[in-house]
Amino acid sequence: MNLKIVALAGGVGGAKLAHGLAKILSPENLTIIVNTGDDFEHHGLYISPDLDTVCYTLAGLANPVTGWGRVNESWNATENIAKLGGQTWFQLGDRDLATHLMRTSRLKKGDSLSAITHDFCHAWGIEHRIIPMTDDYMPTIVDTVEMGELPFQEYFVHQRCKPTVKGFRFEGVESVRPAEGVEKAINDADAVVICPSNPWVSIAPILAATKLNSTREAGFTSKKNPIVALSPIIGGEAVKGPAAKMYRELGIEPSALAVAKGYEGFVDGFIFDKVDAVLEPEIQNLGMKTMIIDSYMKDINGRERVAKDVLKFIHTLL
Amino acid sequence: MNLKIVALAGGVGGAKLAHGLAKILSPENLTIIVNTGDDFEHHGLYISPDLDTVCYTLAGLANPVTGWGRVNESWNATENIAKLGGQTWFQLGDRDLATHLMRTSRLKKGDSLSAITHDFCHAWGIEHRIIPMTDDYMPTIVDTVEMGELPFQEYFVHQRCKPTVKGFRFEGVESVRPAEGVEKAINDADAVVICPSNPWVSIAPILAATKLNSTREAGFTSKKNPIVALSPIIGGEAVKGPAAKMYRELGIEPSALAVAKGYEGFVDGFIFDKVDAVLEPEIQNLGMKTMIIDSYMKDINGRERVAKDVLKFIHTLL
Repeated sequence: MNLKIVALAGGVGGAKLAHGLAKILSPENLTIIVNTGDDFEHHGLYISPDLDTVCYTLAGLANPVTGWGRVNESWNATENIAKLGGQTWFQLGDRDLATHLMRTSRLKKGDSLSAITHDFCHAWGIEHRIIPMTDDYMPTIVDTVEMGELPFQEYFVHQRCKPTVKGFRFEGVESVRPAEGVEKAINDADAVVICPSNPWVSIAPILAATKLNSTREAGFTSKKNPIVALSPIIGGEAVKGPAAKMYRELGIEPSALAVAKGYEGFVDGFIFDKVDAVLEPEIQNLGMKTMIIDSYMKDINGRERVAKDVLKFIHTLL
Repeated sequence: MNLKIVALAGGVGGAKLAHGLAKILSPENLTIIVNTGDDFEHHGLYISPDLDTVCYTLAGLANPVTGWGRVNESWNATENIAKLGGQTWFQLGDRDLATHLMRTSRLKKGDSLSAITHDFCHAWGIEHRIIPMTDDYMPTIVDTVEMGELPFQEYFVHQRCKPTVKGFRFEGVESVRPAEGVEKAINDADAVVICPSNPWVSIAPILAATKLNSTREAGFTSKKNPIVALSPIIGGEAVKGPAAKMYRELGIEPSALAVAKGYEGFVDGFIFDKVDAVLEPEIQNLGMKTMIIDSYMKDINGRERVAKDVLKFIHTLL
């Protein structure tokens, strides 16, 4: 089981599988590359929602109910922000605020997001490496029918994903560079795992920022390390978040097959849930190896179970 | 008792008398001008310690034990800032953080400190007008024997006033302008009250920023409204803070007389404590009218009692 793995993760779903992988892989064998397309500024603070979700989850600090923010959180700052007329659609817990404050003030001093993340992980006792996909700013913009273009958190949190999606744009994608350590981690990996995160707004930004989609055949990866993806869609619905709604609004029937089609051409192996077993022939027709598992990660045991399945599958591909 | 009063206030002592005055004067008859020489940036937040102390005190939100910060405060953000390696010598309570966050983000948007303070006071139910001495940045720099020049909070909070003081400097004082409303409030006032705040680092910056010291005789005040000062030194010691220590280090015996001497030339009346009654002839020799009172404001009744004495005294000067 001494595989070197790079996992690409968005928020909650990605954090769960990353957590499972961290339970069974030693720190030197797992690097988690996290989406930062959701990053935004709120009350003058630089906020990295997916990075925080992944870090808090691995540190055992995550709120298990909400899927975001900290466990045992207090809300005294937010209550008082509201009293002063401030927007509170993005909830800032008191403990969580420390993260945003320290990150923001260090960014202002010129430290990179990846260096800050490294230090935070150390402070939180996280031994596995977590790297933001880029130290550049590449915000995801959601184009909607009703409200035009919206920054991601405006769409996701403020508008609660209600506007109808027309498309997505990653601002500055042309000039964005992977963060320090990202390329080396991918080149050194035996396999890359695309976590069951939202393909449109969690995985696509990471693939774009790391050039993993467009440059795989051009030899960006120095050896034939397989890329394995997991479907965030189970039985036509997303476990959490707006992925299924996005597929529908873009005119695509949401399914594990639809996810696999999106990854066609650069994903070698595809893992999806047993309830979607009937889709296997069509997914295999896309040129992917397949594995059917119980992919729902209800609890910490579920995370570890799925992580073990992923490693087993990778062994069959090597 | 329909006097229009302007009170000049620093932190705790100033806030107490301002609170007493607010108890007995209607909102249209009291304007409090507050020192902002202590303002500084910490973890990227713009912090106005004296403004917050005065506002929290008048709003009934102040911590009665510490003299700074909020009552019933929680410290979850600060605890987590410490875990991430951040400096915590300036304690940021969770409720207090909302004030700093909202102020900082509004300043970044281009709002003035005085406009923000106006809105905060409204939100906190404060009816009397509280204005920062200036909307410009005029930080107080403390020159010390051991450590050279220190920004005020570095001296006051971080170094706990331990370094030996050589002098003070108000950075940018040449170009600083009084905040919107300050000049009009002074011109419209029947009297100006210098609260029992630290003369060196609370009152001197306000006098400099409002030009009240240098321009009084040049007609800055449009009529002969008296200026009345209260001694923060009682029996040779400051009720709170480093005022007495500063006098000593600057080679001056700390006393009500020393305070009066510092205000010589532009203060018309001087109020000091009964324990210092023996100093009355010397203070009168400076050309000031005097009033001897019980000036120690132990509780809310003490604040109101001293405020009433101040108004009585002003009536004798008009």
